[in-house]
Amino acid sequence: MIQKQQSRTISLHDLARLAEGRVVGDGSVLLSGVASAHDAGPGQLTFLSGAKNYAAYLELLKNSKAAAVIAPEDAPELGLPSLRLKNPYFGLVKALNFFFPFERPDYSLHPTAFVSEHAEVDSTASVGPQAVVEEGAIVEAGAVISAHAYIGRNARIGQNTLVHPGVRILADCIVGNNCIIHANAVIGSDGFGFTPHQGRQLKVPQVGNVVVEDDVEIGACVTVDRGALVSTVIGAGTKIDNMVHIAHNVQIGKNCVIVAQVGISGSTILEDEVTLAGQVGTVGHVRVGKGTTVAARGVVTSDVAPGSFVSGFPLKPHSEERKILASLRKLPDLIKKVRELEKMLEGNENK
Amino acid sequence: MIQKQQSRTISLHDLARLAEGRVVGDGSVLLSGVASAHDAGPGQLTFLSGAKNYAAYLELLKNSKAAAVIAPEDAPELGLPSLRLKNPYFGLVKALNFFFPFERPDYSLHPTAFVSEHAEVDSTASVGPQAVVEEGAIVEAGAVISAHAYIGRNARIGQNTLVHPGVRILADCIVGNNCIIHANAVIGSDGFGFTPHQGRQLKVPQVGNVVVEDDVEIGACVTVDRGALVSTVIGAGTKIDNMVHIAHNVQIGKNCVIVAQVGISGSTILEDEVTLAGQVGTVGHVRVGKGTTVAARGVVTSDVAPGSFVSGFPLKPHSEERKILASLRKLPDLIKKVRELEKMLEGNENK
Amino acid sequence: MIQKQQSRTISLHDLARLAEGRVVGDGSVLLSGVASAHDAGPGQLTFLSGAKNYAAYLELLKNSKAAAVIAPEDAPELGLPSLRLKNPYFGLVKALNFFFPFERPDYSLHPTAFVSEHAEVDSTASVGPQAVVEEGAIVEAGAVISAHAYIGRNARIGQNTLVHPGVRILADCIVGNNCIIHANAVIGSDGFGFTPHQGRQLKVPQVGNVVVEDDVEIGACVTVDRGALVSTVIGAGTKIDNMVHIAHNVQIGKNCVIVAQVGISGSTILEDEVTLAGQVGTVGHVRVGKGTTVAARGVVTSDVAPGSFVSGFPLKPHSEERKILASLRKLPDLIKKVRELEKMLEGNENK
Repeated sequence: MIQKQQSRTISLHDLARLAEGRVVGDGSVLLSGVASAHDAGPGQLTFLSGAKNYAAYLELLKNSKAAAVIAPEDAPELGLPSLRLKNPYFGLVKALNFFFPFERPDYSLHPTAFVSEHAEVDSTASVGPQAVVEEGAIVEAGAVISAHAYIGRNARIGQNTLVHPGVRILADCIVGNNCIIHANAVIGSDGFGFTPHQGRQLKVPQVGNVVVEDDVEIGACVTVDRGALVSTVIGAGTKIDNMVHIAHNVQIGKNCVIVAQVGISGSTILEDEVTLAGQVGTVGHVRVGKGTTVAARGVVTSDVAPGSFVSGFPLKPHSEERKILASLRKLPDLIKKVRELEKMLEGNENK
Repeated sequence: MIQKQQSRTISLHDLARLAEGRVVGDGSVLLSGVASAHDAGPGQLTFLSGAKNYAAYLELLKNSKAAAVIAPEDAPELGLPSLRLKNPYFGLVKALNFFFPFERPDYSLHPTAFVSEHAEVDSTASVGPQAVVEEGAIVEAGAVISAHAYIGRNARIGQNTLVHPGVRILADCIVGNNCIIHANAVIGSDGFGFTPHQGRQLKVPQVGNVVVEDDVEIGACVTVDRGALVSTVIGAGTKIDNMVHIAHNVQIGKNCVIVAQVGISGSTILEDEVTLAGQVGTVGHVRVGKGTTVAARGVVTSDVAPGSFVSGFPLKPHSEERKILASLRKLPDLIKKVRELEKMLEGNENK
Repeated sequence: MIQKQQSRTISLHDLARLAEGRVVGDGSVLLSGVASAHDAGPGQLTFLSGAKNYAAYLELLKNSKAAAVIAPEDAPELGLPSLRLKNPYFGLVKALNFFFPFERPDYSLHPTAFVSEHAEVDSTASVGPQAVVEEGAIVEAGAVISAHAYIGRNARIGQNTLVHPGVRILADCIVGNNCIIHANAVIGSDGFGFTPHQGRQLKVPQVGNVVVEDDVEIGACVTVDRGALVSTVIGAGTKIDNMVHIAHNVQIGKNCVIVAQVGISGSTILEDEVTLAGQVGTVGHVRVGKGTTVAARGVVTSDVAPGSFVSGFPLKPHSEERKILASLRKLPDLIKKVRELEKMLEGNENK
């Protein structure tokens, strides 16, 4: 395993305090990193997320050199010191944040970057090699604009937001505070709007923008189109995986989770806390109610009530879709069976 | 709503002349911008596309501060001056082009760009910050190569074509006049060609190129592979949405519409005016006839006759696919029913 | 057809020696390039891959100006000199490599590139215009880092690897020898890992890396996420088409073939020589056995035994899936038929 260098240490006891968890065993053990049970070296912390298969995991731990383990509150005795938590991932987050603190670039404006003299870049922000910040753009305190990133005219990047290499934040778009935008994502490309005119497709200019609220994470190679007249909006706390396409005028609520390769058509509304699993699609102009989950590959073909768990194309309650998919395997035999019944019945008729 | 700054004004009457439409009400009203009915401020123009729900829209207009509205020819009285058009989108395009004229960069070659001394860039073209134009490349009159865009060796960019930030036009590829290529699109990546040899996949060099004809629009993060021996061609007037993949040797006709996340396999031929809706796929070496529409998520599994409306996987007439999808919901009950019939019939037999 | 310039010539006889093939006809004919039968000019070589439709091809050859043809060992007499091979693609590869040799850039470090003084770039490597190589990065002998490419901190690029424009190899990632990474691909973006905490999605830091072994090809706009704690691994000789998403912790074996727009969920294991056809998806934490092929659009929903040929969602043996899809077209009629049978049977019952 290759991992970033680690040089800090913490006792299990102190980590437990950070994570508000409970120590079982020797809390004084000193930890110098985190690794999988298989890869962990002496002094390293490992991690057990859940109870799926304790027997196999216990076997793995027996052969591990790990010094301690983060585990669910109700895990059995694990044979080495442990940090117990209701949500062990919370402990993992605390440990990783301790061992892998964010390393700010050691420059403010890199000499190879181009920053317009009519842009405002806070003195605590960083602009990396070959990055471009156009006129009228604003980069707020603590923001990091990585190498090759592009901040268009009059765009705004909020405090402590991290813009990875090759990201394009196009003109007039606004990104809030504490966001992370991954490499080669595009925010503010034109919506796909045309009207037929004299046998050709005439472009409808797209003059809205994109507003990304605070604490949003946007994956690599994601594209978010600007609104036609209004703003395309991504609500606070929403997390978007790689290669998701978000069309013009889409309104995404707060704390949504959008998994990779999803496509959201124009003017779709996702209320808060919606989950779209991988490769889901939506037709345009539909509303997906709060807290709904659409299972992988589903296509949202009409409005969905809050709190639904749906899948398939067209969209159905997930339990119904599963029943249908199971039934499908019986269809070829069913056709034969019906043919037989028909013959029997014809025989009866002819008696 | 946040929108680009607007400072031009036009009377409704003059706009009607531009759009070849009819004024109903006071044509002298001065307009200073376009917005949705909800967002429009005093002096702004709003827009009504269709008759779906006039009642709700009339209610919205009552509370709108808009000064005028673009509406379909046959819309009812709307309570404020209106511009009537058979295709109201055409009026919207005229208004948007008036209020949001394209702003050319105010430089010819940006000092941070790298342009090979063996490239030809027209004196009326613009090359933005950190852009690269390699040797032998040609950039024609009025073309705009935005920041971080890459024009490879011997590539050619036609007149007035707009290449957005981060676009890669690779060696030998040709883009026509009046095209728009959106951010981070890739034109001319290698086709996916390998042949098994001694237990490994041996690369078949891809030595063709890509030809993008005039008036084409290509979305953000689209990839168009170069032909193996020939040119991959995108016909004049075709519009391609974000994240579409176009494989080597594909021939796309004129005025096609390809919606987001479509994948077109190698050597596929789309005749003119084909529409592929979102997330459609095609197998390789098929021909899709002129004017055909493939509905969302369909997979083109064989040749399609001109003028078809098809969907599903494998592809079927759309009406048949819809019938099948509706039938599917009855399948679990059908299985039960057939089991009952079987029992009844066995009962009869045994009588 | 537009193609890169060609200026080398070779006799059919000498080409046959390179390709270890057999000449039929005049081996002394001099060849100056490769083209399709339709496009070939005098002195050019053309190519016939297989026996699908010899009659049509023979007609095409009759009208071709080609000087010779590469053909399968057992093709009939073709009317012009031919190079016969069991795998004619192997001959095509040899011919293309001869006529289109790789042209190395004629600079070592381009003056507009930024290379950290704490990076190690071999003197035989090339770093193109506006490229960035961060501190601690290593670029080995013969590697080509194209324009606008980004090599992050402590990343390593192996010998003779070709990194196309706009590629992002992020911190700590390792790419082996003789790899090709196509434009705008992203290697090492964060995995999509969050845990619910106090009503929000809390980011789980992703501290692993990506290891790309030797002889791998990765398509344009592909995204490969770094592991959460471990390495995401792409095995030697694997070929990946455009716009494929590979999530954190995925382990891909050797000589796999992953076609465009596939999505591979977290911690999935592909053993060696697996083929995933276009737009396939996998759920997380599954293992796909050696030599398995998943047909286009399939969704891997559970472990798959080695050597399988599977398709559909959920995944089934391909032959079963085909039977089901064929049966589906009979479903609407089946429902009617069962209703009729029911009525007949009720009639019988009531007799």
